Amino acid sequence: MSFLIIAPGLKVDSWIKQLRALEPRLDLRVWPQVGDPDEIEFALTWNHPPGEFNQYKNLKCIASLGAGVDHILRDPALPASVPVTRVVEASMAQSMSEYILLSVLNYCRHLHAYHKDQSRRKWQPRVPLPAHKIRIGILGLGQLGADAARKLCHLGFQVGGWSRTSRKIPGVSTFAGNEALDNFLSQTNILICLLPLTPATEGILNLTTFAKLPAGAYVINAARGAHLVEKDLLKALETGQISGACLDVFQIEPLPEDHPFWDHPQIVVTPHISSLTYPKAVAPQIVDNYNRVKSGKAPMHVVDIERGY
Amino acid sequence: MSFLIIAPGLKVDSWIKQLRALEPRLDLRVWPQVGDPDEIEFALTWNHPPGEFNQYKNLKCIASLGAGVDHILRDPALPASVPVTRVVEASMAQSMSEYILLSVLNYCRHLHAYHKDQSRRKWQPRVPLPAHKIRIGILGLGQLGADAARKLCHLGFQVGGWSRTSRKIPGVSTFAGNEALDNFLSQTNILICLLPLTPATEGILNLTTFAKLPAGAYVINAARGAHLVEKDLLKALETGQISGACLDVFQIEPLPEDHPFWDHPQIVVTPHISSLTYPKAVAPQIVDNYNRVKSGKAPMHVVDIERGY
Repeated sequence: MSFLIIAPGLKVDSWIKQLRALEPRLDLRVWPQVGDPDEIEFALTWNHPPGEFNQYKNLKCIASLGAGVDHILRDPALPASVPVTRVVEASMAQSMSEYILLSVLNYCRHLHAYHKDQSRRKWQPRVPLPAHKIRIGILGLGQLGADAARKLCHLGFQVGGWSRTSRKIPGVSTFAGNEALDNFLSQTNILICLLPLTPATEGILNLTTFAKLPAGAYVINAARGAHLVEKDLLKALETGQISGACLDVFQIEPLPEDHPFWDHPQIVVTPHISSLTYPKAVAPQIVDNYNRVKSGKAPMHVVDIERGY
Repeated sequence: MSFLIIAPGLKVDSWIKQLRALEPRLDLRVWPQVGDPDEIEFALTWNHPPGEFNQYKNLKCIASLGAGVDHILRDPALPASVPVTRVVEASMAQSMSEYILLSVLNYCRHLHAYHKDQSRRKWQPRVPLPAHKIRIGILGLGQLGADAARKLCHLGFQVGGWSRTSRKIPGVSTFAGNEALDNFLSQTNILICLLPLTPATEGILNLTTFAKLPAGAYVINAARGAHLVEKDLLKALETGQISGACLDVFQIEPLPEDHPFWDHPQIVVTPHISSLTYPKAVAPQIVDNYNRVKSGKAPMHVVDIERGY
């Protein structure tokens, strides 16, 4: 049983190191040096070439390197019979929650503006937005969204959350399903997107959505670039319906040098660093799934392909 | 019994509004329009001219507008028999803890660097400092320090704290007294100063202190400008003993335009905004103290003048 890493453009040295440390006898291959494709039974992947998996007729598991699986499911030729797994790991929620707190406080306490003031040697105190009066709305209450909600709540913000199916989090006002979305949006001053990317959530951050927020709302997208209709954000900033945004993900990454987001005074750009996958933290669950598959068991953290996450 | 506000250079309109809302018949005077000095029995103050209080021979309480009283106690002619009070208010701890979390995350997640990258249209992900490996040390475990310690702890950081007398905070390693200071410093990657300013703490952030931290430590000062020996910070940044600093307070405020901190690449400057006194939140305890004094009772939150806070 061979283990294939297929992650074009990604440095996989530390993955190899961590996997080998846990399972020294692993028959590990790195695409495109695949050897006999019939020997491949487990694939660890990030942005594989569409159609690629059809070459491996004995493949028993397609494991995403990260929490998202949109990069796998967008392959129209994905073999329907092979389970797809994702990473579920506490350190990713930790990293994401830090990013969310940082971006929320950066906005409420005007740090971005002070950075600009500093470069002009300008001393200009600004009135902060008080946490207890700010209503934060999180789109997506999975592992990442729920952790961020709890931490923002603990810090004194009013926190609401929206998810496809009903969720309960102490101290958080939760909303479920499409019929509750407008109500959720109408109560949100800072909208945070932490949704999985699926056909149903693609482009959810658009002019129609923005129009349902109170005027002057702030937007944080730390999910996927395709959640945001980029030109709609520029329009909403122009009218003032949206007062600013902090974006970690983009339609095209790295963000093209001529993109209008770079020098927009109300947009904070970060280079897709909100939640990182640490091979050391994640390798054990990958190896565990490899061993489960090897011994004929079903892998853990299998995604629902119909649902998209 | 007259109530005097003496806060040269400060806008006091919202103080007057809040005080009057609570106590409409208050005989309120604003310095220098004092009227008969013998009628003044209560003074609300910020940065009064030294010696000023000796003119009010019936003065029964000197109330600081904020949490700090160093601006009162530094007056060498302060009447010894008049109690001095400070503000103790949850919203100040909230505001300060937000600032501390923001400055810690700004450092660990490199937001300051990303702001600079954005202005150059540069996409360059950086490896974050993981919270669970970072040891934060808070100098001062009063209301503000203890609140920040608890919140940093909840966010996953290793947190230590040092105070003059022994304190216990769940999850926080506490150190007390001068003899424990070196041990505390040797375990601190991010040193945060939240001490009251007293003769014992003035200049505590100096080369000797910095030398006891692990190499490359980070410094946050949100207490008073006089805690930091500014030239010592510049030296420690030059040698690399200190890797960076976030400063909200300065020896001279506003920070002079020609000050080297403004364009130092490793220093974040904010214009004394870490913890704000909201007249609306604080006026009730000021009026309460006024009424206590009026009815012959001792005021609340009296500071120990010997100790300095």
